[in-house]
Amino acid sequence: MKVVLIVGDGMSDRPLRELGKKTPLEEAHTPNMDEIASKGICGIMDVISPGVPPGSDTAHLALFGYNPYDVYTGRGAFEAIGVGIEMLPRDVAFRCNFATVSEDGVVIDRRAGRIDSETAAELARSLEGVKPSTHPDVEVLVKHATEHRLALVLRGPGLSKMVSDTDPESPQKPLEECKPLDNSPEAKKTAEVVNELTKLFREVLEHHPINRERAEAGLPPANAVLFRGAGTLPRLDPLSSQYGISFAAIVPTALIRGVAIAAGMKYIPVEGATGTTKTDVMAKARAAVDALKRYDFVFVHVKGTDNASHDGDYRTKMEMIERIDEMVGFISSKISGDDYLALTADHTTGTRARKHLGDPVPVAIYGAEVRVDDVRSYSERSCAKGGLCRIRGVDLMPILMNYVDRGRKFGA
Amino acid sequence: MKVVLIVGDGMSDRPLRELGKKTPLEEAHTPNMDEIASKGICGIMDVISPGVPPGSDTAHLALFGYNPYDVYTGRGAFEAIGVGIEMLPRDVAFRCNFATVSEDGVVIDRRAGRIDSETAAELARSLEGVKPSTHPDVEVLVKHATEHRLALVLRGPGLSKMVSDTDPESPQKPLEECKPLDNSPEAKKTAEVVNELTKLFREVLEHHPINRERAEAGLPPANAVLFRGAGTLPRLDPLSSQYGISFAAIVPTALIRGVAIAAGMKYIPVEGATGTTKTDVMAKARAAVDALKRYDFVFVHVKGTDNASHDGDYRTKMEMIERIDEMVGFISSKISGDDYLALTADHTTGTRARKHLGDPVPVAIYGAEVRVDDVRSYSERSCAKGGLCRIRGVDLMPILMNYVDRGRKFGA
Repeated sequence: MKVVLIVGDGMSDRPLRELGKKTPLEEAHTPNMDEIASKGICGIMDVISPGVPPGSDTAHLALFGYNPYDVYTGRGAFEAIGVGIEMLPRDVAFRCNFATVSEDGVVIDRRAGRIDSETAAELARSLEGVKPSTHPDVEVLVKHATEHRLALVLRGPGLSKMVSDTDPESPQKPLEECKPLDNSPEAKKTAEVVNELTKLFREVLEHHPINRERAEAGLPPANAVLFRGAGTLPRLDPLSSQYGISFAAIVPTALIRGVAIAAGMKYIPVEGATGTTKTDVMAKARAAVDALKRYDFVFVHVKGTDNASHDGDYRTKMEMIERIDEMVGFISSKISGDDYLALTADHTTGTRARKHLGDPVPVAIYGAEVRVDDVRSYSERSCAKGGLCRIRGVDLMPILMNYVDRGRKFGA
Repeated sequence: MKVVLIVGDGMSDRPLRELGKKTPLEEAHTPNMDEIASKGICGIMDVISPGVPPGSDTAHLALFGYNPYDVYTGRGAFEAIGVGIEMLPRDVAFRCNFATVSEDGVVIDRRAGRIDSETAAELARSLEGVKPSTHPDVEVLVKHATEHRLALVLRGPGLSKMVSDTDPESPQKPLEECKPLDNSPEAKKTAEVVNELTKLFREVLEHHPINRERAEAGLPPANAVLFRGAGTLPRLDPLSSQYGISFAAIVPTALIRGVAIAAGMKYIPVEGATGTTKTDVMAKARAAVDALKRYDFVFVHVKGTDNASHDGDYRTKMEMIERIDEMVGFISSKISGDDYLALTADHTTGTRARKHLGDPVPVAIYGAEVRVDDVRSYSERSCAKGGLCRIRGVDLMPILMNYVDRGRKFGA
């Protein structure tokens, strides 16, 4: 009695004019997903609540059974945990971007020309020694994530996550000052540290040889760091202690990996899994099947569908869906008769809107004792007619645990 | 405008291999239930919440419109109320078992060979005079329930329900010591009383003539009492004062009867209603029709479906379902055109798993003004396509009250 949970990030969509008012899931060729739907029980799911566009972090908290309104402490912490920083209870974490900023402080490119991972990692290492002189009791931990992204953790007495972002969110706007969001001395101190680090980082980066090389090559320099998503360590009751079984996660995206690790899942690295549309889905599929020998629950995450949606690229989204379909086929062919497989998305990402939307996502659960319904294909509309009707994201984990005899009874 | 609520305990199930992947409700011959479904509005219901296996007590709290997470104070209190002990606010109640314990304190049979009710009642009377010498300010009320079960209430100053069970839950394990579950002097005192009573009861029972007779007849002696489910009086706003109509309950099972009485329902005893698979369902049906002359709302509970499921006996479960169907037919033929009849289960009990499961239950509501849907049969899967979609247990009572013009408006 094992469980595989496969999440196609942002795989759900709205009907697209380019596809004759069909969604990418409806239009793509997905025989394996359709088989799961045919032999399983289906439904639609409001991952957070109806009409509320989920973030990828809150969405996965909900899918893992945590009420994000209770436990969410900001994105920064998950990003930091995801890249391997061991956070302490009073740490404040940020997700940061390398960016290109003009001399007078206007953000020209929020991603420094989507700087490649290798270069960004080297730049991130140059920031490691930087210390705020105004608050020398604060330690700064920096670690590169992917491409332009890095995680930064402040450690020391009297810090707070109640500070604003320095990221202006859109380009051609000035880098913002970090401001305290409440009247506490902790927020004031944290904002001061962030503002000093912003200045110190610009000095280090401005004179870094890599940026001189980039300038010569006509590439935008990564000459500033944007701070956002201040967060503290979330307190999550680990899934394994809640349900008494073991959990593993195959998830290359740092943020989601951070949520999985925070929930007590064991992270399993997979060669070739990149968190982009170029990921090796079959390597993930093989790793998932292998992990099932050692773990009771395996979570497999594929990010590419979301990336394609944010780029407004429905063709690549459909290709990614078809590759996820292959992965689903491989995994479902390898599981045993009393195992369960659940297939869903963490949110709807509109390929037209190029962002997360609050429409529900389709969900299908296949396994020996589900009440098989009449649904014959896996999509937003077909699943809406299924036997699960409409559920919430936070209910998915209890539903899966109930199938594998791990339901937590309430009452006598 | 009256309402009958019929609950088949644990009537809902999962598809069973022995029934060709159908559920007992799908496979049984239930023309009357199907007629209710055909002429009514149907849906599925998470009695507590999706994937959470309900206890019978929390389930009925929810069906009566109370949020069990807010009001549940442990099983003991409902058991005591159910057998007719009038509980006071500071009393602590336990559900107890007569058990067979070896000389060195190992529980050999948790039910003393499922001792018959008559014998157990006589043994229970012998415990009535027993007083704890360590805490003489504590009064002990004992009352027999059914078979090996009895209810026990401690009354006196400074008691607490925060104490552990003495029942080891499985046989061949030692009788456990009752321990305080917090650091309060009340919990300490209560645990001391329970431990002394355990000892005193063993002395009384050891020398009781009934147990000598049982030994001679080769039956396991009922020589000990196991304590479990410590609970205090739940504070429930009575249904009659919430809705301004009168409520009655036909329910032979002490625990559920306790919940009904605590909710302010008038208990109507019925000759031949036993709370087992041998119950006289038609006697209940006639009593329900009769009660409708005097009460606005009549709750009818049938336990046998749950017993059969716990025994893994799908044939008896189907027979019980068919007998409930007869009851439904009789009652629906006698109600008037503006009355409503609701049919549901308090939880899914898996006949394969032999326990309560977190899968939703089917619900059908028949009456003049429901929005009749396309569902033509009463079962877990057919009802999932109904017009109620998927609701929660706690919503059923407001839905029923709304039909009979007792909806509680919120706002102006």
